[in-house]
Amino acid sequence: PPSKLPAVGTTIFTVMSRLAAEHGAINLSQGFPDFAPPTRLPELVVHHMAAGANQYAPMAGAASLREAIAQKVATLYGAAYDVEGGITVTAGATQAIYTAIAAFVRPGDEVIVFAPVYDSYVPAIELNGGHPVFATLRHPDYRPDWDEVAALITPKTRMIVINTPHNPSGAVWEAADLAALERLTRETGIIVVADEVYEHMVYDGRRHESVMRHPGLRQRSIAVSSFGKTYHITGWKIAYCLAPRELMAEFRKAHQYVVFAVNHPMQLALADFMREQPRFATDLAGFYQAKRDFFRRELEGSRFVALSCRGTYFQLARYDGISDMPDTEFARWLTVEHGVAAIPISVFSPSGEDHRIVRFCFAKHEETLAAAGARLRTVG
Amino acid sequence: PPSKLPAVGTTIFTVMSRLAAEHGAINLSQGFPDFAPPTRLPELVVHHMAAGANQYAPMAGAASLREAIAQKVATLYGAAYDVEGGITVTAGATQAIYTAIAAFVRPGDEVIVFAPVYDSYVPAIELNGGHPVFATLRHPDYRPDWDEVAALITPKTRMIVINTPHNPSGAVWEAADLAALERLTRETGIIVVADEVYEHMVYDGRRHESVMRHPGLRQRSIAVSSFGKTYHITGWKIAYCLAPRELMAEFRKAHQYVVFAVNHPMQLALADFMREQPRFATDLAGFYQAKRDFFRRELEGSRFVALSCRGTYFQLARYDGISDMPDTEFARWLTVEHGVAAIPISVFSPSGEDHRIVRFCFAKHEETLAAAGARLRTVG
Ligand SMILES: CSCCC(=O)C(=O)O
Ligand SMILES: CSCCC(=O)C(=O)O
Repeated sequence: PPSKLPAVGTTIFTVMSRLAAEHGAINLSQGFPDFAPPTRLPELVVHHMAAGANQYAPMAGAASLREAIAQKVATLYGAAYDVEGGITVTAGATQAIYTAIAAFVRPGDEVIVFAPVYDSYVPAIELNGGHPVFATLRHPDYRPDWDEVAALITPKTRMIVINTPHNPSGAVWEAADLAALERLTRETGIIVVADEVYEHMVYDGRRHESVMRHPGLRQRSIAVSSFGKTYHITGWKIAYCLAPRELMAEFRKAHQYVVFAVNHPMQLALADFMREQPRFATDLAGFYQAKRDFFRRELEGSRFVALSCRGTYFQLARYDGISDMPDTEFARWLTVEHGVAAIPISVFSPSGEDHRIVRFCFAKHEETLAAAGARLRTVG
Repeated sequence: PPSKLPAVGTTIFTVMSRLAAEHGAINLSQGFPDFAPPTRLPELVVHHMAAGANQYAPMAGAASLREAIAQKVATLYGAAYDVEGGITVTAGATQAIYTAIAAFVRPGDEVIVFAPVYDSYVPAIELNGGHPVFATLRHPDYRPDWDEVAALITPKTRMIVINTPHNPSGAVWEAADLAALERLTRETGIIVVADEVYEHMVYDGRRHESVMRHPGLRQRSIAVSSFGKTYHITGWKIAYCLAPRELMAEFRKAHQYVVFAVNHPMQLALADFMREQPRFATDLAGFYQAKRDFFRRELEGSRFVALSCRGTYFQLARYDGISDMPDTEFARWLTVEHGVAAIPISVFSPSGEDHRIVRFCFAKHEETLAAAGARLRTVG
């Protein structure tokens, strides 16, 4: 049968991680930590498996976990969400984003995204018959241009998908950005999907500007976050989203038929852990800022020029001087010949402005980052 | 915004399980076992969490698990699937079915389903713009009528979703049914999605007629099975599907953006367990047949008349004599007043032929089934 996604191949993350494994390269491509979760967390999973929580969790998520999430966002963002009707646990943030799109986007609808754009958004929009409309994050700081966004909004705009802290650029939106978005969407029916999975990785004393801090925006937003990123458990595939009751009711209509429910013993373990160690999440910024600084020092003396990184666990670097190869070819070459895998970010951009920039994931032990740095300093 | 699923409320499983919990009723509604997984299985999860498998699994699933699955279906069904390109691990069977529909069904396509129909299929079809077309499973044995199906096929038929052993009826299709389906779909572009999650629960010496046993059908089919049902771990939400390479390539294009990947430590545990205890799955039929027989004896002397049950962990029962209430009201009443929750199966049927029949899940300890039986014998 003809493909619904003719332009789509295998995600770049799978392609690069596979290539890294085949060639024994240091894998700084796909974003995931190489450290263990806090030891208490698997202990709690053991406890809940033994205590018998091995059957279906409630469709919306375990009550204890929804309560812990409500408490967290009240404390951090001053946002009140209804535990019953405003919070849903998902099988990863990708599933939350896909489901939000499936629940609201109809054939012919327009969805504004910001390029460079995380690779799941556009295919999710297209699978649901929507049309992606690209706003550009402007170099060198990957700032949104709100006049451009205003000009892209039409009566067909159903949704705007935002992402801050931003993958792949490491940019972090400011209060003025959220205020601009609030102004542009006020008195429209536009739904905002806010991918905030890197909420706890914001550096240099800045703060994460969640949509949850902005009541006018909050009322039209589905905010998505991730346990995988926060607790070093990307492989457990548990995330969550928050929305006002009416939006969440529609989200759940789709959610219950997309996956129905999410891993039960691990949800309960996360609920306990959030209560026992609330500071783990908020200490993460310090932990990752030190990694960022370490890795940036490693790049000094190489021909890779580090761009600014205000958040996420990704560091962009320009390599203009090194090579004329097409970007994905360069990434292959860097993996195969120099033993370091990275993501060429132009694969996330229709614009072409993002050529000759690679993304390194620095969520790694210092020895790993040092070894990668040593290899990168020999390139070019 | 207007709903994409205006007719959909909360799934009946959530509604009834909640009601059962609120009223302290014995919950034979939503289908899940009340026994623990085999003790070795959580031990293996502990092992793999400690060994460090806490980051993303490969998008298609852990290689060891795909190999174990390939081996199993080769042994049981004589079916050769490609470990690399033919098997994908999913976040439950619901996600596999949703994703198959999302990958292939376009607005205006027709999808044939068999009523009474499992409650996720129709909303999944509708969310993707498809039109469900209902074939009827004929009373009293819930047999498909292949002349009816032939008459329902049109040039717009993109997909047929089948389910054997069948939830909710407990019917099990025979080789002749699969042969008829093969004949009807031969030389068409129709894709068959085969929900076979109860494959190991077929009783009285019959065998499960998987689409995998029928090469002509296999080549156009996506076969879905579940670890939750087989290992008493419905709450872990891990399942898988098998398909020829070309179909699977399209499935994965959607899968990678619907959830990306599935719980890693639990996948590895399942792979080990399948190798260590291959007979656990094939012994399940004996285990559940004894439960079925026990529960049917419990219904004797009640005014519930057990229908035939050849597979699954569900027992249907007619209650014509007891009450004139609408079916869902009866189910509420049975829960609240008599302390036993069940599913009124007419919620799965547009036809209305299925009135005054409830579904009981007998995947419970004997004491639970006996207590439910005692309560049911006092009804009416
Ligand atoms: C879903 S795998 C990719 C992980 C990730 O978010 C990234 O590398 O950007
Ligand atoms: C997905 S919850 C419902 C479980 C089930 O398959 C059923 O009860 O039929």
